[in-house]
Amino acid sequence: MRFRQIFRLIGILNFFLGLSMIAPLIVSLVYSDGSTFPILYSFVITSGSGIALFLLIKTNEYPSLSQREGMAIVTLGWLSAGFFGSLPFLFSGSIGTLTHAYFESISGFTTTGASILSNIESLPKGILFWRSLTQWMGGMGIIVLSIAILPFLGVGGMQLYKAEIPSPVVDKLQPRISETAKTLWKVYLFITLLEIGLLFVGGMPLFDSICHAFCTMPTGGFSTQSASIAQYNSAYFEGVITFFMILAGINFSLHFKFLKGDFKVFGKDPECRVFVSILAILILLVTFNIYGTTYHSIGNAFRHAAFQVTSIITTTGFVTGNYANWPGLSQIILLLCMFIGAMAGSTGGAIKVMRIILLVKHGYQEIFRLIHPHAVRSIKLGGKPVPAEVLNSIGGFFILYLSLFILAVIIMSSIGLDIVTSFASVAATIGNVGPGFGLVGPVKNYLSIPDLGKWVLIFCMLLGRLEIYTVIILLAPAYWRK
Amino acid sequence: MRFRQIFRLIGILNFFLGLSMIAPLIVSLVYSDGSTFPILYSFVITSGSGIALFLLIKTNEYPSLSQREGMAIVTLGWLSAGFFGSLPFLFSGSIGTLTHAYFESISGFTTTGASILSNIESLPKGILFWRSLTQWMGGMGIIVLSIAILPFLGVGGMQLYKAEIPSPVVDKLQPRISETAKTLWKVYLFITLLEIGLLFVGGMPLFDSICHAFCTMPTGGFSTQSASIAQYNSAYFEGVITFFMILAGINFSLHFKFLKGDFKVFGKDPECRVFVSILAILILLVTFNIYGTTYHSIGNAFRHAAFQVTSIITTTGFVTGNYANWPGLSQIILLLCMFIGAMAGSTGGAIKVMRIILLVKHGYQEIFRLIHPHAVRSIKLGGKPVPAEVLNSIGGFFILYLSLFILAVIIMSSIGLDIVTSFASVAATIGNVGPGFGLVGPVKNYLSIPDLGKWVLIFCMLLGRLEIYTVIILLAPAYWRK
Repeated sequence: MRFRQIFRLIGILNFFLGLSMIAPLIVSLVYSDGSTFPILYSFVITSGSGIALFLLIKTNEYPSLSQREGMAIVTLGWLSAGFFGSLPFLFSGSIGTLTHAYFESISGFTTTGASILSNIESLPKGILFWRSLTQWMGGMGIIVLSIAILPFLGVGGMQLYKAEIPSPVVDKLQPRISETAKTLWKVYLFITLLEIGLLFVGGMPLFDSICHAFCTMPTGGFSTQSASIAQYNSAYFEGVITFFMILAGINFSLHFKFLKGDFKVFGKDPECRVFVSILAILILLVTFNIYGTTYHSIGNAFRHAAFQVTSIITTTGFVTGNYANWPGLSQIILLLCMFIGAMAGSTGGAIKVMRIILLVKHGYQEIFRLIHPHAVRSIKLGGKPVPAEVLNSIGGFFILYLSLFILAVIIMSSIGLDIVTSFASVAATIGNVGPGFGLVGPVKNYLSIPDLGKWVLIFCMLLGRLEIYTVIILLAPAYWRK
Repeated sequence: MRFRQIFRLIGILNFFLGLSMIAPLIVSLVYSDGSTFPILYSFVITSGSGIALFLLIKTNEYPSLSQREGMAIVTLGWLSAGFFGSLPFLFSGSIGTLTHAYFESISGFTTTGASILSNIESLPKGILFWRSLTQWMGGMGIIVLSIAILPFLGVGGMQLYKAEIPSPVVDKLQPRISETAKTLWKVYLFITLLEIGLLFVGGMPLFDSICHAFCTMPTGGFSTQSASIAQYNSAYFEGVITFFMILAGINFSLHFKFLKGDFKVFGKDPECRVFVSILAILILLVTFNIYGTTYHSIGNAFRHAAFQVTSIITTTGFVTGNYANWPGLSQIILLLCMFIGAMAGSTGGAIKVMRIILLVKHGYQEIFRLIHPHAVRSIKLGGKPVPAEVLNSIGGFFILYLSLFILAVIIMSSIGLDIVTSFASVAATIGNVGPGFGLVGPVKNYLSIPDLGKWVLIFCMLLGRLEIYTVIILLAPAYWRK
């Protein structure tokens, strides 16, 4: 482990993170909302400490990073981003304690969208903008952004990229990783602009349009309204946001190929077909379940079912209805969605459809093996055999995800929370969803969770966003052994 | 698939099942409880239909059964045992409908212990004895019993044995499978007699001692009392039963080796060490959690924690305290126990400690592989490498267990049950535990579940007892393809 290089790179990362605060700074100036100086101080401290770290640690080599070093940089970089990202909240007085500010900041960067704030409309516009921007940057990856911008992160960039976007199947769009990162960010920016336009055209104020698009595309779920999207009660906005949540839940490589002219790419992709099918089936199930119980017209039932199922399965977490009051079946389906998640290579969290498909295929494979003990048949996806290492890695991921989930639930319940809240708060944070059930239900927030519990959930959000391995590996004794 | 042989063997099985009804017949005569004729009719119909099936289907060959045929015989044999086992309940009027009687019967044979009965003390003694006997026979396996008794089930016996006791690691105690089956049944009988003696010596009536031992050793959990073991409020009985529940949760091969003079066998076995450690840790956690909240002396807290954690993790399901009123942490631990289960090769249900150990090792293996990508290291248990096929099979089992669990929960909630009841009723039946939470909590029973839900749970009990593969394989299209 070359700690000098690691901390130097984190310094660079901090410098850029600080620069990104110029955007909310401008917003605060435009609205003269009183948050200008708090954001300015945050900018100076963040960028300044980044420069200091860069200058104080002298090294001339930019070696090709090892996978271990890549994982350390990404995990430490995210922890540090969580800290500096909380400064605007603290300095502006929007959030009173470091724990609360760190929670909100990590919830932003990890695109979870779990909030401790209750009167969101009253916050200064600059702070609201920063809150949305953390989600937008976190969605496609703050480190992937650096890779796109910084040319010298050549070979090492690949390790950072793999640590921050640890998809079960790596899809290199371009021969060079910095080009891949640039391409992904361009696609991301393009779709975000499209959503801003459509929301604005429908009558949403520009500021709110930008903030909501910034929180849709990373499947984040922060809103400028305490009541989330329910505030607008507009079928048009809900339709637009549902559509873009689905786009955000799709592998961005497919969007790139689509924009390149391969218009059949979504239908050809086996994971995409399964994702859309699951989405359709669950929306129909919930529609019929809430029709007649909670909503009295089938249209209304469908509207809320489509929005809420899409919002939860893509791990966005926007809310239009108090689903905690829906019948049991709908609640169980939404809970299940928190674990399934969207496609690999999307900005969504949780286990992801790709892994679910391969796990189910593995289960069926074992049944097949009992029926035909001597037949040799490998597991395939889209006609291509899946290597055993990938299957083992997915199996390991699934076991670790569940184990850490259970461990966190035990800790949450041992600090006195009820079963439903313990269960749902962990599911909603490790899955980067946001709202859960119980005390952290759709019309509530995370303020009532004790501070110790908030730190457990902060850890869960990070675990979920960096897909377990990148974070958990730092806790393995073998990692630190020479 | 040679259906003639399959149905002929099921006929033999029915004949023996009918013979076993002679025991409750004698009990009913001794107590002249009015259930003599109902049990006599059941005996005649069961054995008679068995003989009829045997005589009507003519075949001279007793071929070595294939694995597929073995699984078909075991699944169909259990379904048929569930039906004939329900006759005494129906004929005696103890249970009014076939659905309820089949539920109680399958719950007995699968050693689940979920009951639809509320006033258990009022039942005729003969019926109570039959109820306990179904558990005792189901625990070590009704088909394994046939293998032990019937000499001609030579080679085919192995396939039946593997289908009824599908342990992840087969432990052949004797060179011939019929000898292994005989040995296991002898050990089982010996420990059961020991428990009867200890309960009787402590002052429990002989009838109740026999019934409770018959339901402890198979980790069944039916009691002759509606209030279960809480009825006696005796630390001695609870201590004895706790001790024998632990024995029942241990691999019976270890008991055999112990009785053969290898007194260190429990400490040497890696799975046994983990099982006892988990048990100890969870008992301590629950003790401290319920001390001061539910129970006001540490001794009382420990007594109830030890009994209840042991009862649930061994999937027995006896009850001494209303754990549904315990604090959240204790409830979550008990819910977790419903999934963990006891050791492989024990009479307990659920996932089992052996599989949990290997799954966790698989998870850590993947972390290790990321740290040392080029190191070759196989997963070991007790110093011996575990073959990849065993690991794949365990992975498949785990995925199928969870998938079927989720599917059943969705069905239960779609028929209108609340989340907690849907969740707990499936966990408690697929894990062969018995009592759950919510409507099926420790001081309630399964009567309030709608009939459709009862059939779903009957399927879950069978899935759990035959460890998924044996049952689910019959539903795979590939199984029926030529």
